[in-house]
Amino acid sequence: MTTVWLDGTHVDGRATIPVSDHALTLGDGVFETLVVVRDRPFAVTRHVARLRASATAVGLPAPDEDAVRGALDAVLRADPAVGRLRVTWTAGDGPAGPVRGDGPGRLLVVGTPAPVPGPVRVWRAPWVRNERSPLAGVKSTSYQENVVALAAARRHGADEALLADTTGRLSEAATSNALVSDGAGLLTPTLATGCLPGVTRALLLAWSDALPVPVREGDVAFDDLDGRALALTSSLRGVAPVVALDGTTLAADDRVGQVAAAFAARRDDDLDP
Amino acid sequence: MTTVWLDGTHVDGRATIPVSDHALTLGDGVFETLVVVRDRPFAVTRHVARLRASATAVGLPAPDEDAVRGALDAVLRADPAVGRLRVTWTAGDGPAGPVRGDGPGRLLVVGTPAPVPGPVRVWRAPWVRNERSPLAGVKSTSYQENVVALAAARRHGADEALLADTTGRLSEAATSNALVSDGAGLLTPTLATGCLPGVTRALLLAWSDALPVPVREGDVAFDDLDGRALALTSSLRGVAPVVALDGTTLAADDRVGQVAAAFAARRDDDLDP
Repeated sequence: MTTVWLDGTHVDGRATIPVSDHALTLGDGVFETLVVVRDRPFAVTRHVARLRASATAVGLPAPDEDAVRGALDAVLRADPAVGRLRVTWTAGDGPAGPVRGDGPGRLLVVGTPAPVPGPVRVWRAPWVRNERSPLAGVKSTSYQENVVALAAARRHGADEALLADTTGRLSEAATSNALVSDGAGLLTPTLATGCLPGVTRALLLAWSDALPVPVREGDVAFDDLDGRALALTSSLRGVAPVVALDGTTLAADDRVGQVAAAFAARRDDDLDP
Repeated sequence: MTTVWLDGTHVDGRATIPVSDHALTLGDGVFETLVVVRDRPFAVTRHVARLRASATAVGLPAPDEDAVRGALDAVLRADPAVGRLRVTWTAGDGPAGPVRGDGPGRLLVVGTPAPVPGPVRVWRAPWVRNERSPLAGVKSTSYQENVVALAAARRHGADEALLADTTGRLSEAATSNALVSDGAGLLTPTLATGCLPGVTRALLLAWSDALPVPVREGDVAFDDLDGRALALTSSLRGVAPVVALDGTTLAADDRVGQVAAAFAARRDDDLDP
């Protein structure tokens, strides 16, 4: 079941938008995906802040915070079985061509059941993340690079694609941030690699001292991943151990399991950290 | 006035699409922009071929060629004053999340008056084109990088943004290909720089021997543009001389003017080269 909030109203799954919306024709929009924990959107304050940061970074007006929160609540009220909430903030209707209109933007919230998490197999993609793009660090609806990388990973028998930045450092996965074992703890690539400033990633860094093993920022060469423990982090996955890299099974790493369990417990304990 | 063809029917400018279309939520679509010359879409065969090539490159099914041609004709019949035709081929409706559905895609054609060409001032953007992206050379609806670069150019008093590739070569402008004076002729960057295989660019290369000065492929350092003649090429602009670079006025170059005139004459002579 799909539950939609659009233009200030709860509507059914057959909702439509004008073809003049620049998110449709030019990918000119930003978005967030939230997971529902105990009937509430998890980390809503951080997600709303990142949505606004993404909009500002690309020069779009920021969405109204109360409107975003109200829309999320409306979808959850309409369908308490929703497990995933996607918030899209578009550039709104604009003229033909690539020059923006004057707005206003368009706010769309879609609620669906949460996907069932499974074991994660990753594949190293041949393409690279552009850390010098105007969209570096922006959760943009111009998401086709990730769609293509994810589709290629699936063709290679994997569930996610890992991407290097243009200098050869691990950046992130197509739809998740990455963790790599290093010494006693876990590293996550720096934002300088063009990865998204993920909410789960940020919480792990903020909570590092209280975790069973430390999670720190640090860069790792893309060709230096063999034999290291890997995990992906995202709102929907939480902390998910990677079980295979490029078709090779990885040994389970206790550090990843401990951090995953600690994150899940703390997440259940504080729904808006 | 805006004239729209969608889902097999000519509809008015208030046409809408479902919010489940992945071009809206994930920028998962490809497009073409055609100029109308003597009441016909110019170079329609080349544009249809590139639309299919873009779709194939990103793993989308190719649109039906007859459907695309029929839609273009329908919009022109409905409104003979149309000067610009935008064809969008989307991934169609898909499930929540970044995994594609099974299609079918959605074909959208929008006709509007052509913009009035004017003098072109360009600005060198600080961001770079990613020539190792899965979207390199693809005319993707994930176009926000270009929208942001164009908006920044306008804030800097220019009409277009020039972009380097990640290795420091001139790649293209946000919405056009580039020409740079070199010796007796004009160079256009190679496709290895991640630029689009523009239709106007391809025609200039194909017609080079018959032009007043040769147009060849070749790369130019992004920091070696000062003092050289520049022009932009696109379906809507044809060959447009650049009059200023980063705020500095450029001297008119006879070679650019000659090529622009020769291209315009030949274009009027053969509407589907």
